Formats: sequence, C-alpha cells, structure tokens
Amino acid sequence: MINIISGGVTAAKGFTANGVHCGVRKNRTKRDLSLIYSEKIANAAAVYTTNLVKGAPLTVTKNHIKDGKAQAIICNSGNANTCNANGIEIAEETCQLVASELKIEPNDVVVASTGVIGQPMSIEPFKKGIPELVSGLSVDCGTFASEGIMTTDTIKKEVAVSFNIGGKECKLGGIAKGSGMIHPNMATMLVFITTDCAISSKMLQKALSTDIQNSFNMLSVDGDTSTNDMVCVLANGMAENKEIIEENEDFKTFMTALNSVTVSLCKMIVGDGEGATKLLECKVFGADSIENAKLVAKSVVCSSLLKAAMFGADANWGRVLCAIGYSKADIDVNKVDVAFSSNKGEIVVCKNGAGVDFSEEKAKEILLEKEIDILINLNSGNVETTAWGCDLTYDYVKINGDYRT
Amino acid sequence: MINIISGGVTAAKGFTANGVHCGVRKNRTKRDLSLIYSEKIANAAAVYTTNLVKGAPLTVTKNHIKDGKAQAIICNSGNANTCNANGIEIAEETCQLVASELKIEPNDVVVASTGVIGQPMSIEPFKKGIPELVSGLSVDCGTFASEGIMTTDTIKKEVAVSFNIGGKECKLGGIAKGSGMIHPNMATMLVFITTDCAISSKMLQKALSTDIQNSFNMLSVDGDTSTNDMVCVLANGMAENKEIIEENEDFKTFMTALNSVTVSLCKMIVGDGEGATKLLECKVFGADSIENAKLVAKSVVCSSLLKAAMFGADANWGRVLCAIGYSKADIDVNKVDVAFSSNKGEIVVCKNGAGVDFSEEKAKEILLEKEIDILINLNSGNVETTAWGCDLTYDYVKINGDYRT
Repeated sequence: MINIISGGVTAAKGFTANGVHCGVRKNRTKRDLSLIYSEKIANAAAVYTTNLVKGAPLTVTKNHIKDGKAQAIICNSGNANTCNANGIEIAEETCQLVASELKIEPNDVVVASTGVIGQPMSIEPFKKGIPELVSGLSVDCGTFASEGIMTTDTIKKEVAVSFNIGGKECKLGGIAKGSGMIHPNMATMLVFITTDCAISSKMLQKALSTDIQNSFNMLSVDGDTSTNDMVCVLANGMAENKEIIEENEDFKTFMTALNSVTVSLCKMIVGDGEGATKLLECKVFGADSIENAKLVAKSVVCSSLLKAAMFGADANWGRVLCAIGYSKADIDVNKVDVAFSSNKGEIVVCKNGAGVDFSEEKAKEILLEKEIDILINLNSGNVETTAWGCDLTYDYVKINGDYRT
Repeated sequence: MINIISGGVTAAKGFTANGVHCGVRKNRTKRDLSLIYSEKIANAAAVYTTNLVKGAPLTVTKNHIKDGKAQAIICNSGNANTCNANGIEIAEETCQLVASELKIEPNDVVVASTGVIGQPMSIEPFKKGIPELVSGLSVDCGTFASEGIMTTDTIKKEVAVSFNIGGKECKLGGIAKGSGMIHPNMATMLVFITTDCAISSKMLQKALSTDIQNSFNMLSVDGDTSTNDMVCVLANGMAENKEIIEENEDFKTFMTALNSVTVSLCKMIVGDGEGATKLLECKVFGADSIENAKLVAKSVVCSSLLKAAMFGADANWGRVLCAIGYSKADIDVNKVDVAFSSNKGEIVVCKNGAGVDFSEEKAKEILLEKEIDILINLNSGNVETTAWGCDLTYDYVKINGDYRT
C-alpha cells in the first residue's frame, strides 16, 4: 500500500534541504543552488548519463559515492560545469565548502550541476551561497531545493510517498529537473530521491538500476542525451525498519514505492518538457518481448513528426506506423492496432496495420486534451510497456533558438 | 572531368518526362503525377527504405526491377499509398495504365508514391492523368516531372552533369523530393536519376548502393525514416560508350559523376527541409575510422537542440559536444576541436574538448548566413566525412502540426 503524501526530498525522516540564489545565474529572482542534507550518514546509490562528454561533477560524485555512503547533495543550475578546464577543481572545492560548513567529510558530498555547457565557472558564488544554504536548512525549505535545480523548467517537480515495511512507516520522496536535453539513456535528467527506509547500499543500487529501465529510461523530450544526467538516492535508515539486504517482500514493497515516485517525476518532466503543451503516454500492449515493446514505445514518443502532429491535435496515425516501422523492433506491421485516448474518450484509427474509418471531429476533441495516450497493440504476445514524451511546439524552437542569452 | 549542365532527368539522351495535375491532390495548381520515360529499355538499379512499414509501390517496384530492367518511372505525390488495404492493387494497376499507354511491359514500369500515409486511394485520378502525361512527354517537360513529385518542398530539385567515358560524352541527371520524414537509413527520400551511359545492371546497382552511403544516408531533416523512400537510376546506354561491366577507370568516372549529382540533390533536400532556413554541413576530420566519423557527423546534424541553436544563430557549441558524446562513436572527447564557418569566415569555439575565448559578435555574423559548416576535428586519424542537415524552426512545427488538412 503506497500513499501519496505532501513534500519531496524532506518528506523522509532526518532530511532537511534548502535552495538560494547565489549568483551562478544573473537573474536574482531565480534560486540557483540547492542542498539536501541527511542528519545521519545515508546509504547512497546513483546512475549517470552514458554521454561520453560528462559534466565534471559526475566524475567527482562517482568517486565520492564509491563507498556507498553520502550525507549531502549540492546542486547548482545555470552552468553545467562541463567542458571547462578547471571543472573538477570547482566541483571538488564545492564539496569541501559544503563539508566544512556541515562538519561532515567532503567525500560524503554528492555534487551535480545543470545549465549551459562550456561556460567558464567561478567558485565565488558557491562561497557566498553555501553558508546561507546551510543556515537555512529545514524540512519546509525542501521546496526551495526543488526550485534551485530548475533550468528551463516552468514548474517545480517534487513528490513523496509513504509505505510500510515490517510495521514501520517509511517515506520516500524526490525532486527532479527537466526539461530539455532529455532522452532515454541510463538516467536522463537530474533527480534526487531521499528515503528513511533502511536498505543496504547494494540493494539500493539494485533497486535504482532496475527501476530506471521502466521509468527515466522510457522518457524523451528532444532526443538529446544530456552530459550531466544523474539520479541519486539517499537512504538514511531512520524509519528503523529491519534493513533490506536481499530480494524479499520488503524489497518488493520498496521497489513499488520507488517506482511510484520515479514515474510521477517522469510525467512531471515530460509534461513540462521545453515548450510542451501536452504529455504523451505511449502504451504498447501485446508484444512478444520487452525489448520489442520498448523499441516501439520509445520510437513513437521520439518522432518529431508525431510530436508536431500532437501539438496540432492532428490524428495523423500514419506517423505512428512510420515510427513503429523504423524502431528496429522485430514485429509484424500487419498486426498493429492503434488508438488515441484522453479524458474525452478513445478512438481506434488503425487495425491490422491499415486505416479504419473514424470521426475526425471526435479525434480532434480527444487530441485537444493535455494528456494523450497513444495505445498500440502489437497482437503478438502478452508483454506491455509505457514510454512518456511531449509534443513539439513553437516554444521548443523559441527556447532553444537562443538559450544562452 | 565532370561538368554541371542544365536540366534534370531529361538531360541524358533518350529520356523524356512530364508532370501534370491529375487529382490525387485537391489543389488544382499543384502537379501531382510525374512520368519519366526512356525510348530504349534501360538497365535499372534501386535502393529502398529500411522502414518495416513500406509503401505498396515499393513492393511492386522491387518485383518489376528484379530483372535489372525498366523503361518508365511513374510517381504521384499527395498520397503515399501506404497502409492501404488495396495498395498493391492500385500500384499494379497504375503500372498497367502506364504500360498500355506507352506500349511497353507493365513489369518495366517503376512506381512510387509520396504523401500522407494511410489515406484511401483511388485509381481514377491515374486513369485521367496518365494519357495526358504520355501525350505531353518531352525533354523540356522534365522540369514538370520534378514538380509533380513535390510534397512540402518549396523548390524543385533537379541537377545534371556531363562526363566523358572512352571518348563518348555521357550525361547523368536527377530529380528529388524532400522535405520531411527525412533521415539517413538506406535511401531517405524519392530520387530518380537517368543516364545515357552504358553500364550493366549489376554495376549500376553497385554504383548506387556504394554512393548512397556517402550521400543520401548522410542527411537528415527530422530523424524520421520515411516509409516510401526510394532512389532509382535508369541507364539506357544511348551514349554508346563501351558498357561498364567491371570496376575499372570508367566505373570510377561514372561513380564521380553519380556522386556529384547525388550530393547536389542532398544539399537541395536539406536546404529545403521542412521549415528550414539554413543548410548545415557537418564536416568531420581526423577520425580513426569511417564508422566513427559517420556516427559523429550524423549525430550532430540530427540534434534538435543544435538545430534550434543554428536557427537562432547561437554559437552554442556545447550542444555539438553533447551530440558527439552520445553519438556512440568511440572517440576521445578531450581531443575534439570545433569551429563554425560560412561565407563570413571561420571561428574556432572549442579546442581539446574545452571552450576557447571567441567573439560572440563574429560568431553571430558567421551563423546568420544561410549555409553553415560545422567543422569537427577528432585529432585521431586521417578519415573524414560529411553529413547534411538543416535548422529546426517554427515553420517545421507549423507545417507538421497540421499536415493533413
């Protein structure tokens, strides 16, 4: 039984957070530095972008997290600290500043950055911001942390759940930043999750690495895999449940709780994709394998042509078939059924790979909604999966035509 | 020595063509049916889309071209004849109508369609249009054929060259249609090429299959591999050169002539990509293998983020690095140099994987031009390649937000 509760990274026991404006960004009204802190040292797990060009913070974090432990997460927005000559230095010094202010070890600090790639970066804003961050740490300021990591995001993204393990109430919550350079490949954005559940570092990593295959790896905003992606989970054990150290029922419960948070964050990320006006959920049924199901679902949510058609509320299902056809999935296109659905109902547009008569008026009504399901039945088995995406709009072009200025 | 000459598919001896409005499209001012005819039966070669969802005409053409011979090419725009229950029937009947009017064999007719996928299609417009097409066949009407295959293209695309084989002047010319659903994978658009050069079917296929690896497979408009792509070459031998039947000097000359036409058509296609305002040419140098060079070049021209930056004339080179990083090429990102160039000069923006100081003003001046070169030196070998793309603009979204109506 998983219950949605209020809050984000400070919902779990023993976690506080904060977000401030420190000056990495010029806009003084935008928080640009966030800190998450666990009063007890926590077990930690993370996954990273597979892009060969990696932000310097990822290298530092990987090193710090090697021992499976961490106590704080520091993250700035406005500058990705990527392709900078002194990037590692800056990231290390940031951890030292955090550690000295919190009186913890520098190698228990996770560091992340997001923003423009290849811009010079100074340590000065961190020197100013970190003491302010630390002095304001609180449960209530968790929401400021979710704001401090935003780039072109228009809404903050936080969610939390509670669940029960062996009679102990556990909580798990997370924050995420989208909203461009988002494409399935390992982790594809910044997500920080905290929990008071007691779980070993090894099982925490296993839970995270398994979960992202069906959550963050199944979403795309624009096909560009970022250089700075990271999903990091801290588990401080303060719920006092019996520590999860194997794949038992408790682990399953934890996985379900984790998945409910990661899928919620996925939907928030694509719903707030750069310029997006619609959240697309592509559900593939009747596949003979999970590989084929995933190839089809991802290919459809990544198609620029389909995404533009969804923006225009145009039931151009031929573009769904086209994207299925080039997905590299091994499927029989003559068995494919396609339907669109939303709050306004469902409409079948293709049966056995060919068009069927349908009401364009009804289709328009369905597609004018903000959340659209694209339902694909491959009629070849029992495997199903879901991928998430968004529409392609004028505003995506506007936002990215001149992002740096 | 390859000379650019005027004309397109009727530049070579013995070829005539025509294009008319037959009624597949409602807009009466738009030609929607094209015919290319060789007075002598020609050797024929073709390559097709790798999309599993294939237009019915491709199945029919593959069958007709099995014997390496063809004498006519018929192509309509406005309806892709894809995902239609009676698609094969329609395509076969179209060939029969052409054959009976031209007094040739139906299986010497190549048939192609382009337009919306999954729309019902009627044979009636073809019954009306084909006699009109045939009666108007001429060298001068070759340009009408280039118009009849256009979809969202805004300019017609034709080019021709002359070259010399064994003292005989040969000519080779082609027409192409772009301009959306264009992405490197086998052939990625409709292209018809004619030549009077004498070359065996086998060597013609070899020339075409080799050439597309460095021409059409290296371009992308929007990452969507079409269901109806086809490149077809007819060679009627009327230049009376000694027939090319092996990989000799004559074959090399023919390959050079073919490549000059295919690359010209590539540039026309991306320059007229849906909504495009800029032609992007990504030149990769210093690669250790052609595979790595191609992965890098294609990844860069396919990046939505970079394409939007180019639309905004924003020298956001971090997006070039990002696209190199996720290209799956095995390269050392710390050796990568990047520069932008155009008619207004060249500017280095990244050395050894890190930013260098550059004048934003000068970069803007360079990037405001219509043809932009993105120069990438991997500094790891001597292999080079080129890929072509276009910018991502408001008009791409506009065109594709409501393509069907």
